[in-house]
Amino acid sequence: MFSFKVNESISLELLQQHHSKEIFELIDTNRDHLRQWLLWVDKRKSADDMVPVIKYWLDNLASNHGFDVAIRYNGKLVGMIGVQFEWGNRAATIGYFISKDSEGKGIITTSLKSLIKELFDRYSMYRIEIQCAANNLKSQGIPERLGFKKEGIKRAGQFLYDHYEDLIVYSFLRNEQS
Amino acid sequence: MFSFKVNESISLELLQQHHSKEIFELIDTNRDHLRQWLLWVDKRKSADDMVPVIKYWLDNLASNHGFDVAIRYNGKLVGMIGVQFEWGNRAATIGYFISKDSEGKGIITTSLKSLIKELFDRYSMYRIEIQCAANNLKSQGIPERLGFKKEGIKRAGQFLYDHYEDLIVYSFLRNEQS
Amino acid sequence: MFSFKVNESISLELLQQHHSKEIFELIDTNRDHLRQWLLWVDKRKSADDMVPVIKYWLDNLASNHGFDVAIRYNGKLVGMIGVQFEWGNRAATIGYFISKDSEGKGIITTSLKSLIKELFDRYSMYRIEIQCAANNLKSQGIPERLGFKKEGIKRAGQFLYDHYEDLIVYSFLRNEQS
Amino acid sequence: MFSFKVNESISLELLQQHHSKEIFELIDTNRDHLRQWLLWVDKRKSADDMVPVIKYWLDNLASNHGFDVAIRYNGKLVGMIGVQFEWGNRAATIGYFISKDSEGKGIITTSLKSLIKELFDRYSMYRIEIQCAANNLKSQGIPERLGFKKEGIKRAGQFLYDHYEDLIVYSFLRNEQS
Amino acid sequence: MFSFKVNESISLELLQQHHSKEIFELIDTNRDHLRQWLLWVDKRKSADDMVPVIKYWLDNLASNHGFDVAIRYNGKLVGMIGVQFEWGNRAATIGYFISKDSEGKGIITTSLKSLIKELFDRYSMYRIEIQCAANNLKSQGIPERLGFKKEGIKRAGQFLYDHYEDLIVYSFLRNEQS
Amino acid sequence: MFSFKVNESISLELLQQHHSKEIFELIDTNRDHLRQWLLWVDKRKSADDMVPVIKYWLDNLASNHGFDVAIRYNGKLVGMIGVQFEWGNRAATIGYFISKDSEGKGIITTSLKSLIKELFDRYSMYRIEIQCAANNLKSQGIPERLGFKKEGIKRAGQFLYDHYEDLIVYSFLRNEQS
Repeated sequence: MFSFKVNESISLELLQQHHSKEIFELIDTNRDHLRQWLLWVDKRKSADDMVPVIKYWLDNLASNHGFDVAIRYNGKLVGMIGVQFEWGNRAATIGYFISKDSEGKGIITTSLKSLIKELFDRYSMYRIEIQCAANNLKSQGIPERLGFKKEGIKRAGQFLYDHYEDLIVYSFLRNEQS
Repeated sequence: MFSFKVNESISLELLQQHHSKEIFELIDTNRDHLRQWLLWVDKRKSADDMVPVIKYWLDNLASNHGFDVAIRYNGKLVGMIGVQFEWGNRAATIGYFISKDSEGKGIITTSLKSLIKELFDRYSMYRIEIQCAANNLKSQGIPERLGFKKEGIKRAGQFLYDHYEDLIVYSFLRNEQS
Repeated sequence: MFSFKVNESISLELLQQHHSKEIFELIDTNRDHLRQWLLWVDKRKSADDMVPVIKYWLDNLASNHGFDVAIRYNGKLVGMIGVQFEWGNRAATIGYFISKDSEGKGIITTSLKSLIKELFDRYSMYRIEIQCAANNLKSQGIPERLGFKKEGIKRAGQFLYDHYEDLIVYSFLRNEQS
Repeated sequence: MFSFKVNESISLELLQQHHSKEIFELIDTNRDHLRQWLLWVDKRKSADDMVPVIKYWLDNLASNHGFDVAIRYNGKLVGMIGVQFEWGNRAATIGYFISKDSEGKGIITTSLKSLIKELFDRYSMYRIEIQCAANNLKSQGIPERLGFKKEGIKRAGQFLYDHYEDLIVYSFLRNEQS
Repeated sequence: MFSFKVNESISLELLQQHHSKEIFELIDTNRDHLRQWLLWVDKRKSADDMVPVIKYWLDNLASNHGFDVAIRYNGKLVGMIGVQFEWGNRAATIGYFISKDSEGKGIITTSLKSLIKELFDRYSMYRIEIQCAANNLKSQGIPERLGFKKEGIKRAGQFLYDHYEDLIVYSFLRNEQS
Repeated sequence: MFSFKVNESISLELLQQHHSKEIFELIDTNRDHLRQWLLWVDKRKSADDMVPVIKYWLDNLASNHGFDVAIRYNGKLVGMIGVQFEWGNRAATIGYFISKDSEGKGIITTSLKSLIKELFDRYSMYRIEIQCAANNLKSQGIPERLGFKKEGIKRAGQFLYDHYEDLIVYSFLRNEQS
């Protein structure tokens, strides 16, 4: 019900219980696509499984630790963005995914551009971090297009089913805004 | 950061910690106006006092018990609306206040019109209730203009400093929507 | 073990775990009678199901939010009374039920007469409220015999299986005591 | 409000918030008498100090860990009895105190006689224990008059301000009831 | 990973989750031996059952209520010791068990000798208590060899499946140290 | 009381409440040295301030999220090591500090060498991470001597009083053990 407007096509909706069906369907129709990089996909087997997850996200918001939004594009849920705050160091970490058939339209990049401005202006963050799997070239394109700096490689940073993936760490600082 | 758009001038913003200064100033510049009908006004003495209150509101959201929004009108916070759900009976109760110098412009009435539609459509509520102090004629005008039915008088329903106020109970049902 | 004596025949017993069998049997032998007006009846399937419910009632007592008592009449459990406090407004709401074969003896009315005096004297309540389903004429007889004033009708105030019931709201104020 | 009747003169009242003044006055007028054997006396400096203590006692009741009652004798609070359950072994431990000017009337002994019957019958306890300071001869008279068996001496069992007191341990078993 | 060294052969290891398999195997291979005196043995059916138990023990440590250690003897887990503190009276109670094939080597006695010194010196305890079933002569040998004083018999102090066992209570005071 | 032995001179002691004075004195006599890189130093003003901090560390242990140890060197507390687990990815992050007059003796390096072996063997970690301020060359010497690989620079990763410090990120993987 509550959203952050990115542009005429895109808005970021705070995830509430009334989204449980819609967000489950997004996951369910993109299982193969998402489980490549996300370990939790197989655990979500019905809309009911989303109820405690959505409560967890909103508890995070209430504790001011971060927030999770759905991306609505031309009326349809097409992805998610999660933000976690580390207040002591004024740092935020961003994660995201998008459905297979909405890739290639710049939806995440456009969304993050607006969202990052909010993180600097409204939440007084100083550092924004994005981590991408070293083998996930599409995902890396996003921080790169946004002008993030590649800081290094977090070796074996993510466990995926039967192996460890390296993660590329990108950051963007407040004083790098144009 | 997350809002529900009512029209070009009005939006309802989910209250987060970044609102603490702005919501305190709204209360602080309307103390005499608000303390007529609201017992908690004197307890809010600084923006810091809002921090646990805002957390309480967001905990309510996370538990799906209701939500609290600020009314932004042409860029400025001018009031608040709170909604509490009683899921067992699909009933919601609405409370509100507006700053003295924003009265008379239909801001609350317009906001509630959109909000009530959400409560029926998105939250599947069946009954919406509003209670107004019997001596607060301006407040009563709002449910009346919205087509609420006056159900009765809750005698001595609200304690205010040194006496009890009667409350008029209004309701609107899903099947009364036009 | 702890009770409030109403008269030689009636006492109100604070519900503890040692009542779990007895209170379950009261519900179990009155299922058809009770489920007309009470949605939770079908959920209580054994004495064990009462254990968390009794703990919930006693947690309420410990938090000073209200209390729940069994009505013992000539040695037998015949009904229940629950009281909820709203301390900010010094208001209490009372609910009750009685077994089918103990109806018509004035047991609830007599019990409430004593109980209400306690609510005014010991708990300093100012307003006592009772809500009865509009179709439950027997229940309405109780506040009416006790001199409660009918304040209005809470439309669609209670969801029951497949429809909404209107509720009649009655109240009695401290200054109306004779 | 809820009590267990011992005889025409004595009843045991479950301690609730409405007792906070009365129980504080009992302690306050017996400070010298009580602090001989009870370490917590000096911490209770006003009726308000009793509020969290009473909540703690009622939380104990709600968790079925025990209960705390005031002794009312001819209309006046004259003492307290506390019971703690150890369910795994069906054992209860009893503690008590009485005001100086109510000593010598058998009030505690008479109360415990009835209470112990409840502990066996209603709570299915098997073993009841009472511990008395070795130097508190008056206190020891109570289990002795009730037919408890002296089991031994718990050396240095209680810390009191600047030294340790030995405790005499008494017990009474279900099969010793006459 | 963290241990208290008793001598070259014996160390007491703070129980952590990485012990879950090893501690389960100790219990599992000693079921008949342990269930004679310990009621909980039958409830531990797999290493997974130990996970919440180990968390409970460490929560106890974090709250400073006591601690639970495994006894490692020449590289193998052979028993357990648990300590509970009663800070108000500077009293600690010790419980223990050892595997059948490690009995008779003085492992518990030697361990407790060092542990008791810690309880006096590091935790400033004044009284140490050990309770043994009256029929468990082997267990009684331990406090007796350590110079504990027999204080009395706690009649029917422990429920075991279908009967109550008497417990012998032993204690050792700080000023009895040689 | 519970420790992990590194060698004849060094042991790592799990921090418990009985360390509160000793750990406070370590901090208090190294304030200028420690506050260069640690923001929390000024908040610890007495041994009592350590009580909730130590409880927090032990709660972490109980939840299996990590642990905090004091370094004892020839009988004296000279530093601290903290470990945080990220179980999903089998990753541990290590932090440490040492008193000014114990620097240069290889105490941390030697301690971490043993500790890291534990993290791989006992906790099945796969990746160990250490972050050092870019200006803290002494600190960087430790992962470098231990064969950690420098992965990159976390820009503005730590807020310190009035500015942000860059952090150098080092890691060591299980398969890099010799």
